[in-house]
Amino acid sequence: MKELTIGLIQMPVVEDKQTNLDTAAAMAGQAAKAGAQIVCLPEMFACQYENHSFIENQEEAGGKIWQTLSAIARENHVILIGGSFPESDGGRLYNSCFIFDENGQQIGRHRKVHLFDVDVAGGISFKESDTFTAGSDFTVLETSLGRIGVEICFDIRFVEQTRLMALDGAQLIFVPAAFNMTTGPAHWDLTFRARALDNQVYMCGCSPARDENGPYVAYGGSIITSPWGEIVDKLDEKPGILLQTVDMSRVEAVRSQLPILSARRKDLYRLEEI
Amino acid sequence: MKELTIGLIQMPVVEDKQTNLDTAAAMAGQAAKAGAQIVCLPEMFACQYENHSFIENQEEAGGKIWQTLSAIARENHVILIGGSFPESDGGRLYNSCFIFDENGQQIGRHRKVHLFDVDVAGGISFKESDTFTAGSDFTVLETSLGRIGVEICFDIRFVEQTRLMALDGAQLIFVPAAFNMTTGPAHWDLTFRARALDNQVYMCGCSPARDENGPYVAYGGSIITSPWGEIVDKLDEKPGILLQTVDMSRVEAVRSQLPILSARRKDLYRLEEI
Repeated sequence: MKELTIGLIQMPVVEDKQTNLDTAAAMAGQAAKAGAQIVCLPEMFACQYENHSFIENQEEAGGKIWQTLSAIARENHVILIGGSFPESDGGRLYNSCFIFDENGQQIGRHRKVHLFDVDVAGGISFKESDTFTAGSDFTVLETSLGRIGVEICFDIRFVEQTRLMALDGAQLIFVPAAFNMTTGPAHWDLTFRARALDNQVYMCGCSPARDENGPYVAYGGSIITSPWGEIVDKLDEKPGILLQTVDMSRVEAVRSQLPILSARRKDLYRLEEI
Repeated sequence: MKELTIGLIQMPVVEDKQTNLDTAAAMAGQAAKAGAQIVCLPEMFACQYENHSFIENQEEAGGKIWQTLSAIARENHVILIGGSFPESDGGRLYNSCFIFDENGQQIGRHRKVHLFDVDVAGGISFKESDTFTAGSDFTVLETSLGRIGVEICFDIRFVEQTRLMALDGAQLIFVPAAFNMTTGPAHWDLTFRARALDNQVYMCGCSPARDENGPYVAYGGSIITSPWGEIVDKLDEKPGILLQTVDMSRVEAVRSQLPILSARRKDLYRLEEI
């Protein structure tokens, strides 16, 4: 048994940035007090999910949002997967997740690699690439609690990315994400279960709470899925904290019983980062 | 609309080979009469799923099983995905699927690439590699009804294989398969839905009917899943034919609304056959 306690913060996201930062700090504090060792915030936790809001709320690394995240990690002595915010850097905007250790030191940064450009008939339409530049790196980090992967929302749709993170040693992958009322009911559980099963890892999806009156209606349903493809725990759509202890030794147990990663035909196909 | 009618033959498989060949011919004939244009048989339809049975019932390409398959395709004027049987070739055994066109001509052959070697605590234990040699090619075929992919059972667990077939133009993928009572309830629907969604293709899984008294208890549940990740249709565990008309234009519709294959970051990762 190698147990880890995870806290996923399914917070309400409103128009006012300071309110969102205060909510994140308060709920992360609650999760830590309840025993969470790793806390994850949702995608775009500091501002609403629409292109003009991304522009208005952009900040650089080291700015107010970043400092708030660092303080949350340090004051609660947790590893913090800092959801995402619109990061400005050299005249460009990225959808970025900063990751901090228990001392509040930044230990990683993931910039969303696959931007969300969709136009579903009778459903969601959104073009993230109007505003954002895509990142160019995958993110797997060595932490005090093991090797952790981070990807953001639409990234999870691309099987190559999670596979490459698993091959790079990630056994626990966090996905700050904001699926919507088209893709959420249809694909959220399925995709988190499948990535977990296919790569025999734990997957954690952290969404904002659903706000039926917001400009973008997030699905909610923050979730943890197991290396056997089960839903370990899942929230409904309301604000809440998913607090769950997982047994990381399950990863090796499943991998030895049903070999997938080790049985890949590396003589027949090659998957690699460029 | 580009409609195709598919027939999946969830047949009972018994010890006697001739009985199995007769059952396959009879049920395939029924499916064709009911309108099926492509008919698929299950993995190991001609003998029971156990290592000594594979050895006893092995045949070469061109032998009696192969001739029966060719005749089924020709007499019913259907494309036949011939399930699989233990194919002997040069002193080796393969778990092989032969594919025939409407004239009974062989147009393809898939040898299972990933052999099923598992040992689940309290569940299934099986070692296919005791008997079989693994194939070394992926299988995508040009047919009169479009580009079709074929993989066998455990192959579907490996995301690289289905992805490579989709990138090679397969929009309809057949999987003769025999999941069991450990992996079936846990992973069958999930895996077929995920491969279909992630690659935006139709996936068809064809299993033997469940026989609680057989040496290997197949799950059954033959299934078709859609490019949107839905279950189009699924059988229960009993002998039966899944006859379903699918709209192949849905593939392009889903791909244009929710771009996955076209939005892959080919500048960041490479997946290729060796």
